[in-house]
Amino acid sequence: MVSPLLLRHFLTRSRQFFAGKEIVSRDYGGLFRYDYGRFYERTARLANVLAGLGVGPGDRVGTLAWNNHRHLELYFAVPCSGAVLHTLNIRLFRDQLVYVINHAADRVIFVDEDLLPVLEDVAGELKTVEHFVVMTDRKECPATRLAPVHLYEDLLAGAAPDYAFPEDMEENSAAAMCYTTATTGDPKGVVYSHRGLYLHSLAFLMADTIGLSERDCMLPVVPMFHANAWGLPFSAALAGSRQVFPGSRPTPADLAGLIETEKVTVAAGVPTVWMGLLELLEREEHDLSSLRVVVCGGSAAPRALLEAYDRRGITIVHAYGMTETSPLATVSRPVSRMDDWPADRRYQVRAKQGWLVPGLEMRVVDDQGREAPRDGRAMGELWLKGPWVADGYYRDPERSRETFADGWLHTSDIVTVDTDGFIAIVDRSKDLIKSGGEWISSVDLENCIMSHPAVAEAAVIAVPHPKWVERPLACVVLKAAYRDQVDEAALLEFLAGKVIRWWLPDRVVFLDEIPKTSVGKFSKKRLRELLERGEI
Amino acid sequence: MVSPLLLRHFLTRSRQFFAGKEIVSRDYGGLFRYDYGRFYERTARLANVLAGLGVGPGDRVGTLAWNNHRHLELYFAVPCSGAVLHTLNIRLFRDQLVYVINHAADRVIFVDEDLLPVLEDVAGELKTVEHFVVMTDRKECPATRLAPVHLYEDLLAGAAPDYAFPEDMEENSAAAMCYTTATTGDPKGVVYSHRGLYLHSLAFLMADTIGLSERDCMLPVVPMFHANAWGLPFSAALAGSRQVFPGSRPTPADLAGLIETEKVTVAAGVPTVWMGLLELLEREEHDLSSLRVVVCGGSAAPRALLEAYDRRGITIVHAYGMTETSPLATVSRPVSRMDDWPADRRYQVRAKQGWLVPGLEMRVVDDQGREAPRDGRAMGELWLKGPWVADGYYRDPERSRETFADGWLHTSDIVTVDTDGFIAIVDRSKDLIKSGGEWISSVDLENCIMSHPAVAEAAVIAVPHPKWVERPLACVVLKAAYRDQVDEAALLEFLAGKVIRWWLPDRVVFLDEIPKTSVGKFSKKRLRELLERGEI
Repeated sequence: MVSPLLLRHFLTRSRQFFAGKEIVSRDYGGLFRYDYGRFYERTARLANVLAGLGVGPGDRVGTLAWNNHRHLELYFAVPCSGAVLHTLNIRLFRDQLVYVINHAADRVIFVDEDLLPVLEDVAGELKTVEHFVVMTDRKECPATRLAPVHLYEDLLAGAAPDYAFPEDMEENSAAAMCYTTATTGDPKGVVYSHRGLYLHSLAFLMADTIGLSERDCMLPVVPMFHANAWGLPFSAALAGSRQVFPGSRPTPADLAGLIETEKVTVAAGVPTVWMGLLELLEREEHDLSSLRVVVCGGSAAPRALLEAYDRRGITIVHAYGMTETSPLATVSRPVSRMDDWPADRRYQVRAKQGWLVPGLEMRVVDDQGREAPRDGRAMGELWLKGPWVADGYYRDPERSRETFADGWLHTSDIVTVDTDGFIAIVDRSKDLIKSGGEWISSVDLENCIMSHPAVAEAAVIAVPHPKWVERPLACVVLKAAYRDQVDEAALLEFLAGKVIRWWLPDRVVFLDEIPKTSVGKFSKKRLRELLERGEI
Repeated sequence: MVSPLLLRHFLTRSRQFFAGKEIVSRDYGGLFRYDYGRFYERTARLANVLAGLGVGPGDRVGTLAWNNHRHLELYFAVPCSGAVLHTLNIRLFRDQLVYVINHAADRVIFVDEDLLPVLEDVAGELKTVEHFVVMTDRKECPATRLAPVHLYEDLLAGAAPDYAFPEDMEENSAAAMCYTTATTGDPKGVVYSHRGLYLHSLAFLMADTIGLSERDCMLPVVPMFHANAWGLPFSAALAGSRQVFPGSRPTPADLAGLIETEKVTVAAGVPTVWMGLLELLEREEHDLSSLRVVVCGGSAAPRALLEAYDRRGITIVHAYGMTETSPLATVSRPVSRMDDWPADRRYQVRAKQGWLVPGLEMRVVDDQGREAPRDGRAMGELWLKGPWVADGYYRDPERSRETFADGWLHTSDIVTVDTDGFIAIVDRSKDLIKSGGEWISSVDLENCIMSHPAVAEAAVIAVPHPKWVERPLACVVLKAAYRDQVDEAALLEFLAGKVIRWWLPDRVVFLDEIPKTSVGKFSKKRLRELLERGEI
């Protein structure tokens, strides 16, 4: 019972049982289709290519790519041959990108054709990269300043189609890594082991989480450079699900089209994706009835979003996790004892982050280091541990010590826990608004504002206050149809019955959009900068 | 990502999230009900009891017990405190029982009140046992020759209710063990590690296997002394399922009653259990509509059984495994591409042993050591490996070498594999009938005979033949209503159109019952002995 837990198993299993099952990839020229059998062969070729480029065990291989089939091939060829997949976040600022490539010491970088300019811009500062490989459908390499440069398809065509993926690797060896941006300082690297990704993949297959199945068709909208697309390409290969990759810069119309034509059953992405799709659905007819579940995570899904999708017969399941947790940590599916609860109370549950996935352990710890009572009101910081929770940051002992103490990951997420054990994130510890000795949850306020029918997006930040220390400021984006139709007074009146009086924002500003982080979350850091410069 | 995979997680998780969820146990005096919260407290007390009896890390603790809540407490208290749970098969022959207790060197044995005579009979020959603990609802210990003897409930009442289950055990440490009878020689011990049982438990939670869920109510009919009741009490605790234990010697009427009153959704047991229940259902009305799935394993489920339950709206899922595989290895659920197949073809699939559970690997190897083609016809021996497959037999290097070679478990099961990767067991290698250089599958013949409406049970064995080497003999039990109504000629005529001519049994004998093994399977060994003695 000591067989190592390696990603290789997913690869060989998918070839053995699902060779004819389809993988669809939205490519520059349209939809590319193949199956797990051909996927296996190309992945074996790619492993030979890596060996030919001098990539050895433990070497880091960078990818700067969208969600497509070539990226999927890298997801397996790199770790299963013993190297480490380093997915580069295409939305990092220039200096961050230079930092993470040099810090990880990537030896080769695979880049999607339309992301070439991003890489060319930093290439002169990269200290360890020996080869660039361009992924494109074209027969000729696009003009580029990168050197030495190769064409992905040429390399595959020239490689042998057989490769003996090692069976005897240490299961704790690194399989992949991903950097997460920090509030201050450089991005922090999280390393995923084969064992961690293997066990995390099992978690998605459980009936009480997402229950990913051979019967599913899975569409990862969450980028493959964001915590391994939440591990879904791995889980789907293990389950034998059909996979549909949305490619470069998918619009809501692209997503609706893919779901409709490919009969997607499970889709996963951040709330802003589903908000965007909802706006489209309010204007156009699309048959999305194949969807069994939409996994929504990365930041809190407002209850109004769950309700809006329910009205269209689509179930959103709220999940929570972080780069440091592979990422799946909680899923908010009502448990059996809630079946008789009224709809309103069930929505309250579904809007929470939910229930700890089997395998992980948690603590909720208050300012004084005590376990917070499970009453749904007391706030504390969420601590996590378990077989797919990281133990530290890559080559960063100081920040590792801060975040990983006593064997627990200190998430910086302030949560409540109810009597059923469901957690609700109240705020990031740095986003809490400390008003007159009490805490105001920026997240709760945002959800309340976004339940107004005219509001598309809302973000609440703290502004310094001479008497109360901090007071809330609401930044609001109205839906196109309501632009200039709703003012501050109307919004405050809407909120008045819904939140405690002293939670009411001191000011509401209307923006054209809320600035987003590189992974599509509201960027409160950017809002604070705008505020400091007097621009909002 | 190196947190050890320990059964402790199941225990603490069930307390944290399912403290109020019910566990029901059919006791001598009726139904005993409590919840995971009280279960945790009693399990902690039991861990203190074990320490008080001098049980240390790695020590073996024997149980001679039915499926009940006390046995469940032992399932967790023993391994989670660092000792090894040794479930004794109550149906072993006397000498085998002496052998396994001495071979495992059990230090304490926990015994159910009504199994006292079994233990008293062998007590004089036990070399390592220092304490006996009697499990009963009575306040006084029943008269017994066992010494020193304790009452379970007294020990628990006197123990502290808190216990710090260790978090830092090695995940490969032994958690449980179970002996499997051998065709020749003494029983062979299989040791389960925490890691193995943990990963095996996850397998039952996957949507494509059984999908055990917090919403389920699980009834293990398979004995808790038989491969840990297929690991279901562990899986159910992890999932947070309600659990119902059927207690001592449950009859079909007891099972029907429990399913009906407790609204059981998942039940698990060997085919003979479901055949017995079916006979009852043919005579009496019972509402078993709560059943979502009946897991049937241990020996092959005849297609006729699947069809009979389907007609009653109950889905039997055929599963396969062995003591050496924890046991779950395959599950026979049709995959999505079979959805459009005609009913007949789908039944053919469901009657197979099925599809390899995610996590395991297999080979099917013919006489010449070559991989058998996946054409649904070529036969070969099934080899298995994976994180919940044993690596050897306990302190038995010689037989370990025979069965575990090249890192694979050689199952001795002769199977075919079809193009979808579904395996079908054709026979045990020793039960195959070698007739004139060709193989006849005793299992296929039995299934065919059991599809006759008058037949309750059928077992086919080889008889020596001067010309053909071996020829089949059919041993048949008729249903009560058909006794003496069907003769050999009628049965052979029924078979004539269904099997190849040279597969037709040379002789059919009618018996009152087929002798069973200690785990309820047809005992062909016993039939061969009867044949040798001229008694059939």
